[in-house]
Amino acid sequence: MAEQITCPGFKAAGVAAAIKYEGRKDLGLLFSERPATVAGVFTNNRVKAAPVLLDMERIKSGICHAVIANSGNANCCTGHQGYQDAVSMAKFAASALGVSEDTVFVASTGVIGAPLPINKIESAVPKLVKSLKLEGLSDLAEAIMTTDTVPKIIAKTGQIDGKTFTIAATAKGAGMIRPDMATMLCFVATDIQASSDDLSNMLFNSVERSFNRITIDGDTSTNDTVLLLANGESGIEITNDSARSIFQETLDEVLMQLARMLVQDGEGATKLVDIVVTGADSLENAKAVAFTVAHSNLVKTALFGEDANWGRIIGAAGRAGVPVDPDRIDIYFNDVKMVENGMGCGDAAEAEATSVIKLPEFEIKIDLKMGEEAYSAITCDFSIDYVKINADYRS
Amino acid sequence: MAEQITCPGFKAAGVAAAIKYEGRKDLGLLFSERPATVAGVFTNNRVKAAPVLLDMERIKSGICHAVIANSGNANCCTGHQGYQDAVSMAKFAASALGVSEDTVFVASTGVIGAPLPINKIESAVPKLVKSLKLEGLSDLAEAIMTTDTVPKIIAKTGQIDGKTFTIAATAKGAGMIRPDMATMLCFVATDIQASSDDLSNMLFNSVERSFNRITIDGDTSTNDTVLLLANGESGIEITNDSARSIFQETLDEVLMQLARMLVQDGEGATKLVDIVVTGADSLENAKAVAFTVAHSNLVKTALFGEDANWGRIIGAAGRAGVPVDPDRIDIYFNDVKMVENGMGCGDAAEAEATSVIKLPEFEIKIDLKMGEEAYSAITCDFSIDYVKINADYRS
Repeated sequence: MAEQITCPGFKAAGVAAAIKYEGRKDLGLLFSERPATVAGVFTNNRVKAAPVLLDMERIKSGICHAVIANSGNANCCTGHQGYQDAVSMAKFAASALGVSEDTVFVASTGVIGAPLPINKIESAVPKLVKSLKLEGLSDLAEAIMTTDTVPKIIAKTGQIDGKTFTIAATAKGAGMIRPDMATMLCFVATDIQASSDDLSNMLFNSVERSFNRITIDGDTSTNDTVLLLANGESGIEITNDSARSIFQETLDEVLMQLARMLVQDGEGATKLVDIVVTGADSLENAKAVAFTVAHSNLVKTALFGEDANWGRIIGAAGRAGVPVDPDRIDIYFNDVKMVENGMGCGDAAEAEATSVIKLPEFEIKIDLKMGEEAYSAITCDFSIDYVKINADYRS
Repeated sequence: MAEQITCPGFKAAGVAAAIKYEGRKDLGLLFSERPATVAGVFTNNRVKAAPVLLDMERIKSGICHAVIANSGNANCCTGHQGYQDAVSMAKFAASALGVSEDTVFVASTGVIGAPLPINKIESAVPKLVKSLKLEGLSDLAEAIMTTDTVPKIIAKTGQIDGKTFTIAATAKGAGMIRPDMATMLCFVATDIQASSDDLSNMLFNSVERSFNRITIDGDTSTNDTVLLLANGESGIEITNDSARSIFQETLDEVLMQLARMLVQDGEGATKLVDIVVTGADSLENAKAVAFTVAHSNLVKTALFGEDANWGRIIGAAGRAGVPVDPDRIDIYFNDVKMVENGMGCGDAAEAEATSVIKLPEFEIKIDLKMGEEAYSAITCDFSIDYVKINADYRS
């Protein structure tokens, strides 16, 4: 299925360049045949990788012809040389593609602090450019994987004024994922045409509703980058609110689905859980409670242990730093009410909730009964494999 | 050694009451023969267990004769009945001891949301009171353990005006430990005499320097309670700054040592690591960086894997939400400089740091080189056993 995902006017590729391991795709390219309008969201970590610094400069022009990305090395904390390497990486791609250097963006993901093996990238670029094809998005998706176990790729189409547009996107996640961030790397290609401002607004909105709602381990990457490229190939131009809202909705769906794929494939994760907070007196408070529960290691290990331990959930809600009234809180596992007014609903409810918690995907709803605001976060469980993966990852 | 810890005028006991498990000490008592002046620090979780609510009332009088404590059940989220049970628990002890009910404090630790088996406690109180003895602190220490693997107990003496005073203390920890909190349960007995205000100030200072610096899993208990009882038995009265500072120093040492014992015995922990931030432009910023690193699951799993992965440390420092200049940061593992000006110091430094990280206890220093302020937090690694313990704890 993944093989057939394409977006008109975009080619992509992924090849093995032996950046960290031999014989595994680790260098990818997304190429728009005509210069695309571009919008981006970048990490808010104060420590920013060299490619992020470069892209934040280049995005000011609003034009992007290609994105070259590697896994296996984050090119972060690599000083002046690291920045030069990011510039070179773009230059190699630009010259092989015959486009202006300033229109090539760069993304890297992997270990922090190791020098980028730029010679290996230089040697692999000709092969990379030669393998560009319309159906290459799945190769790009593979090339940006680190601890991901499956590539993440998706496309959706929509209609505006009787014409069809496409949004195709790929992302990689797995670790160092928390909200108030884009996620690690995500490249979105679309064939609509829109102003740079419109694109930026719509991307910002969608990221807020998708990647900014998810948490895997509460850590924030130094390399997070979401780029949206729009090449106009469909002949559709976004010029009015009706078109804007159709495109926004489709973009939301694409990024939301990718965000859920990231959590499902979170490092060691065995469950995806929506943490829904309702009845809050403000959106900020709803968000604070949702993320405190979603980040709690005690909640996440209980999810892994399939123990419907609501005491840990209410305990986390209570330390969110916002006013809650413990004696009013209700908690549901899907439709099963486990807690009413801060107290357990008894053994029958507990038994039912225990069947819910065995599901691979379910919802925990926390009703604060203090107001009308709601927010939902998406989390996963915290497993023995998470620890194994992260105790061993670098070595 | 633990058997011999005593504090003049205090008796203690611990017995098995089958609160959660059979044949394991789970009910403890600390008894001051004369009414003691008392100071306390309690959880700032909005969800507070019934005994915490009761103690917060009773501490207003400043007088405490006894503390009755149980493990196996937190008596939290147990509603009106839970509060009544806490009152009854104090009443049973008061009547068996022949002291006023208002001078008996209560503490509970264990699972949240289950009704307290108050009948079992009632039945066990006579045996508990009968086993009170000067050397009983170690029995109390055992009775408050939950996932702790060893009891934590310590005493120190000091001299004021040629007279000797003693501070003896016990604490339990293991999980739901994070700063801006006391810790789970800690009872401190001393034979000095001091005003309630003096005691409160000194306790607050010591807690700030000890329990508020530690983090095991970033979760905050609903039951955290530190009580300091002073009975005046030594004939020393704290009336001037010199005496105050001698006592403060000894109290600091006692609580600091207990705090380190809690981290060493953190759930699944194999290492104790001091995270020292220097060169910050403000104390708040130093603290924010120290705790962001100390809480980071990626840092903690790397510690468990004995991987000197400084990229995760600098990555966590960068997301602390305060200004840092990545290009100025130095990082040391004990005396080994691993990072200078945001870049790795090479393979030799990495090899040396790798020997440091194999130690059971060491320091990671992060020098921000932006100012003169410093702060240190104490953390442990994050192991497979932490997940196992917390996936299985309730069942």
